[in-house]
Amino acid sequence: MERERFVDADKYKVKPKEAVKLSQWKTDYEGDRLNKEIGTALLESGRKELAEVQEKLYAQNRYSILIILQAMDAAGKDSAIKHIMTGFNPIGVNVHSFKTPSAQELDHYYLWRHVLALPPRGEIAIHNRSHYENVLVTRVHPEYILNERIPGIDSVDKIDDKFWKRRMKQINHFEKSLVLNGTIILKFFLHVSKKEQKKRFLERIDDSTKNWKFSLGDIRERDLWDDYQNAYEKALSATSTKYAPWFIVPSDDKWYSRLVIAAAIYQQFQNMHIEYPTLSPKEKDELARGRVHLTSEKEAS
Amino acid sequence: MERERFVDADKYKVKPKEAVKLSQWKTDYEGDRLNKEIGTALLESGRKELAEVQEKLYAQNRYSILIILQAMDAAGKDSAIKHIMTGFNPIGVNVHSFKTPSAQELDHYYLWRHVLALPPRGEIAIHNRSHYENVLVTRVHPEYILNERIPGIDSVDKIDDKFWKRRMKQINHFEKSLVLNGTIILKFFLHVSKKEQKKRFLERIDDSTKNWKFSLGDIRERDLWDDYQNAYEKALSATSTKYAPWFIVPSDDKWYSRLVIAAAIYQQFQNMHIEYPTLSPKEKDELARGRVHLTSEKEAS
Repeated sequence: MERERFVDADKYKVKPKEAVKLSQWKTDYEGDRLNKEIGTALLESGRKELAEVQEKLYAQNRYSILIILQAMDAAGKDSAIKHIMTGFNPIGVNVHSFKTPSAQELDHYYLWRHVLALPPRGEIAIHNRSHYENVLVTRVHPEYILNERIPGIDSVDKIDDKFWKRRMKQINHFEKSLVLNGTIILKFFLHVSKKEQKKRFLERIDDSTKNWKFSLGDIRERDLWDDYQNAYEKALSATSTKYAPWFIVPSDDKWYSRLVIAAAIYQQFQNMHIEYPTLSPKEKDELARGRVHLTSEKEAS
Repeated sequence: MERERFVDADKYKVKPKEAVKLSQWKTDYEGDRLNKEIGTALLESGRKELAEVQEKLYAQNRYSILIILQAMDAAGKDSAIKHIMTGFNPIGVNVHSFKTPSAQELDHYYLWRHVLALPPRGEIAIHNRSHYENVLVTRVHPEYILNERIPGIDSVDKIDDKFWKRRMKQINHFEKSLVLNGTIILKFFLHVSKKEQKKRFLERIDDSTKNWKFSLGDIRERDLWDDYQNAYEKALSATSTKYAPWFIVPSDDKWYSRLVIAAAIYQQFQNMHIEYPTLSPKEKDELARGRVHLTSEKEAS
């Protein structure tokens, strides 16, 4: 793929056990070979290639793909989905946007609603926010954890460092079990600067077609920026594994962010040898019998 | 929209209480102004317009759209979804392909699994096969109904004409209730000739990239062609209503079939006045407060 010569998604991959300091990771594109125009054209051709692989994935019906997007507000998750996945055949793609858990969801353990939204074989699920919120927004607001009514966790002081380490270990085990059963997992953190977020919030306020995306709650969370960055650093460090890696995607330039995500997905597809299924002798025999039956029909009205 | 000058979807709409004789409905395009090339170009531009309305539908978050596709095998349901809906933003679109009901699904009344798959406000659900299978495949194979374990329905002779009339009435009531609560329902029967189905089955047998779509079971159902046409006629006649109309889409020419479906969806959208939401005074005030908060931040690092 043309795009690979320009974007190597691997350089944004967090190595297993690597201690992440977000301030040391880029939020923008710093090269000089690419720009918005070239990037958009590359994405367009990449999208077509992705769509072709998706058809085969669906026909092969053996693997499933789980794509996780996490980010601060206005980092471009929704628009990345729109621009990368719009070319996909919607028969094999499902986007799940997780909101505040409902009472029914809170009555189950925290992974339940995410398990329900996992992709069936042959399909792609995009989790727009994901089970990681259970170690992110809840880490910034530990009182939310009390709503889960976990035995023994009945006050905020019980939600200590050990609690988070245990939970992140559970997540690693959960993901490993998915991978061993045929799900490919790719996790993207869309990394924006605080300055860029401010710019985008102001756009949402000033552009009447974007007003609906804005809520005052977003600004309250922005005030907790450092707490969130800290929660992300802890999660990215503890849960980037060989089998389910995190990518920290520079996202101040949306066109570049989309290109990196598309490249990472494409590189993953290339490693998987996805092909149309080959038939067993029994299946070939069925085809032959079908052909005989059809061609010997009396009338073909 | 350019397309409307060529395709008026309304002429394929079944009028309420109209007695449908499928042999009198076209399976192919019989005009002379259009051809595959023009049709494909029209669909391309129509797709873009549909995608724009979809964005607004999502932002407005008030209506939902349920699109139902029913047809004999190989009539082009999957490829219609692919070609019409691929341009949609997958965040607001969900495709549900209903297969043989599972034991858990059969433990609930027949509409249950279809209710679970209804579109949330602001979104579009495409039901690839639908609750209509409960008066179609089951009408051809009434013994399937026994698996539902409905009290009093314990032998095939209880599944009489009255049973089907009652069930179709239930479906009308179900759909009316959805419509009254903000769901728009469009139902498409992709009408192919028996001859065209044969041609497509042979393609699936002969083209190795299509082999996976073929099963001998499809041919067994083909042998029951007349029974299916009869079941469709009964269902189309009884359940095409003002609030949830059926369209009988000529589908021997796939490009034309897609154009008719896209035109019907677009005409529906036009009747709905879907716009970006306007803000209440309270919401406007929130925006203003957000702006003040952001611009008075000490550092914008």
